[in-house]
Amino acid sequence: MEKGGTTKQVNYRETAEQLNAASSITVRGVVEAIKEKLDKEESRCMIHLGQGDPSAFPCFRTTPLAEDAIVDALRSAKFNCYSSAGGILPARRAIAEYLSRDLPQQLSPDDVYVTVGCSQAIEIIISAVAARASANILLPRPGYPFYEARAAFSKLEVRHFDLLPEKGWEVDLDVVEALADENTVAMVIISPGNPCGNVFTYQHLKKVAETARKLGIFVIADEVYGHLVFGNKPFVPMAKFGSIVPVLTMGSISKRWIVPGWRLGWLVTSDPNGILKNSGVWSSHTELMLIHHVSKIVSLLHIYQMLDSIKSYIDFSCDATTFTQGAIPQILEKTKEDFFSNIINTIKKDAEICYSKIKEIPCMDCPQKPEGSMSVMVKLHLSLLEDITDDMDFCLKLAKEEAVVVLPGFAVGLKNWLRVTFAIEPTFLGEGLDRIIAFCSRHAKQQ
Amino acid sequence: MEKGGTTKQVNYRETAEQLNAASSITVRGVVEAIKEKLDKEESRCMIHLGQGDPSAFPCFRTTPLAEDAIVDALRSAKFNCYSSAGGILPARRAIAEYLSRDLPQQLSPDDVYVTVGCSQAIEIIISAVAARASANILLPRPGYPFYEARAAFSKLEVRHFDLLPEKGWEVDLDVVEALADENTVAMVIISPGNPCGNVFTYQHLKKVAETARKLGIFVIADEVYGHLVFGNKPFVPMAKFGSIVPVLTMGSISKRWIVPGWRLGWLVTSDPNGILKNSGVWSSHTELMLIHHVSKIVSLLHIYQMLDSIKSYIDFSCDATTFTQGAIPQILEKTKEDFFSNIINTIKKDAEICYSKIKEIPCMDCPQKPEGSMSVMVKLHLSLLEDITDDMDFCLKLAKEEAVVVLPGFAVGLKNWLRVTFAIEPTFLGEGLDRIIAFCSRHAKQQ
Repeated sequence: MEKGGTTKQVNYRETAEQLNAASSITVRGVVEAIKEKLDKEESRCMIHLGQGDPSAFPCFRTTPLAEDAIVDALRSAKFNCYSSAGGILPARRAIAEYLSRDLPQQLSPDDVYVTVGCSQAIEIIISAVAARASANILLPRPGYPFYEARAAFSKLEVRHFDLLPEKGWEVDLDVVEALADENTVAMVIISPGNPCGNVFTYQHLKKVAETARKLGIFVIADEVYGHLVFGNKPFVPMAKFGSIVPVLTMGSISKRWIVPGWRLGWLVTSDPNGILKNSGVWSSHTELMLIHHVSKIVSLLHIYQMLDSIKSYIDFSCDATTFTQGAIPQILEKTKEDFFSNIINTIKKDAEICYSKIKEIPCMDCPQKPEGSMSVMVKLHLSLLEDITDDMDFCLKLAKEEAVVVLPGFAVGLKNWLRVTFAIEPTFLGEGLDRIIAFCSRHAKQQ
Repeated sequence: MEKGGTTKQVNYRETAEQLNAASSITVRGVVEAIKEKLDKEESRCMIHLGQGDPSAFPCFRTTPLAEDAIVDALRSAKFNCYSSAGGILPARRAIAEYLSRDLPQQLSPDDVYVTVGCSQAIEIIISAVAARASANILLPRPGYPFYEARAAFSKLEVRHFDLLPEKGWEVDLDVVEALADENTVAMVIISPGNPCGNVFTYQHLKKVAETARKLGIFVIADEVYGHLVFGNKPFVPMAKFGSIVPVLTMGSISKRWIVPGWRLGWLVTSDPNGILKNSGVWSSHTELMLIHHVSKIVSLLHIYQMLDSIKSYIDFSCDATTFTQGAIPQILEKTKEDFFSNIINTIKKDAEICYSKIKEIPCMDCPQKPEGSMSVMVKLHLSLLEDITDDMDFCLKLAKEEAVVVLPGFAVGLKNWLRVTFAIEPTFLGEGLDRIIAFCSRHAKQQ
């Protein structure tokens, strides 16, 4: 028994460590580690520039209309029941209509899967891709570490392509082409950009679509920050290029409505050429013919198989709260434009404050003024700092000395950078950045 | 490219089929297949005796107090934020206090993980057990197929022990002992019983605990129907035996409050001897010593390792809606006893109607009158029926001819039985059973 016992301890510890490794690379995990360094004697309040959640601030309170929608759905007593797999029809229909406003094509409710926030959409798509033996997926760097965490857990191979700071954080498409092979299934694009705060142009997204098509892969568009743009570039949904390459779009109400705790997201397929709908049942003969004669359709086959896996996975995964789904038509259809503009204006003000103050700091460099989402990437010049060894060390000391939390860049794939989330109450943001200025000044290398 | 294309199609199809196989054995999946047979020309309404969700019926409407709690939490604007991993403290504290009312020991909020319904608790625990190489888990038969679905997806080996109809559906403990080996980590007990509607006695649960301890495994107690008892046996939480064997308890508000769509459950550890708390950091030396000298502690080591995996898994899994968590203290602490007794009385009335009507049907046999939960198992005597081949055939034809949905027993592990969920509005239930009587009469073998 003891020998078996020892062996099983070793076996357990290896796989448990994999699980540990997967969980340690989430934003939440790294932020928790930094918050442990906060000085308990600190009298000043903590300023959290480490996570995209401004919901606690009155200036970021969601619209009463959204709250009313939840209350109406709840009190109707029509939504206390189990959901259907993939979401109830009124929610799916409302999401399809909402997204179709910005697209040349009309999405169908059947294209929509309701998820427990965008996080579950990521979980589902990563699991679906991983269902395929030997698959790999292309992820952006810097990116959002939840993809890597879920991929690690699903044992899905990840390959990273770079976003280029000198080109406004555009995708390095040459690297994408170099990385892809016959096992590459898809590439992920986070648009508007998290963590960089960039907004991709129409032309660039079109090139991304064309590259993906050429490689026979499809595009996973993480649009959780959809419409949160405040510079001079409009938000362009990736599904606009759905006729070039199949697109799986993910989004949620978390960011635009400032309700990340409401856990309502979506995963949406885009098939404007109706190829998937018209194909009916795929026989292996049909597939072979298609492969022989229509090689561009390989990416469609990928996505068709994904849909199968997605549906199966959803069948035994948790559902979004039914009454929140029931509130979605009212939330998406009735929210007034002035709520959105007020939020955008506040975030824009934040972005200005953040960018201008960082410019004052010698040891920091922000290559791209943020134009969307809630965060920006800032490069650290460690050579200008005394006894700060790396980005994590910077963040741990900053938390301890100034009660300010920012995310070290290694957590998003860029070591010795920082991700600064600026979407908080503007005065508070100003104070937080002043504390960072003071910290950097105190740690500046003496000339 | 074509050759690679063909190979990757084959690879994909194998793993996608695994995913399909896993999803096809859920209650929801089988019920959907049966509902497809409903006659679209049928003028009578469908009577659904296939799933434990009476929330649509006015007599099963949840207490306004629970709705108020949600509205209060929502309108406070304090719960629009991301949750902490494992749940916000007020919710964890309230659940700990709620469960402790029935236990000799006081649970701590740190023993509690808030989940997206009991389903996610099952997902988490199955994933945690599967994290251990070569592990196997013991499941009851008949049982709840979601366990098998999640185990199939996680590639976790399942071994089934029987519940004995001739003994009130008690656990066949001899089979449990025969099945367990050095890789067995835990056994699951669903109490009150789903699908059988039985309530385990204190004595029997104590024997279950003692058997588990002897085998060095821990007990996973699925108490989603906790307190839903209406016979002469009280509900006994498994954690009462936490000093005999470590227990992981799962539950939710779904059934007792009739709100399955609210997606709020829990996973709770029980360690009344404080061994886990006192042990601090486990070194491999300590573990080896313990294995050598205290073999009974092996089940504690299992659970300790589980806790690690559970925490890691939760770190990158979806969270329950934050405002629902925020409402939990009010829901658990303030719901009045008369709400519970009204619900219990209605279900008891349902159970009487169901049992007495089934007794009238020659081709059916209900070995145990239901005393808890919302379902009962009924044996089919196919030899007394004309052209009904098996349980699924029975259910498909019943749906088509009588617009009544029941669950075929194969879905819960007992072929040629039926699971009848009786918790619906009583008059409706009576009509549903009358239609079943008519169906069986019409298909009775001519003498």
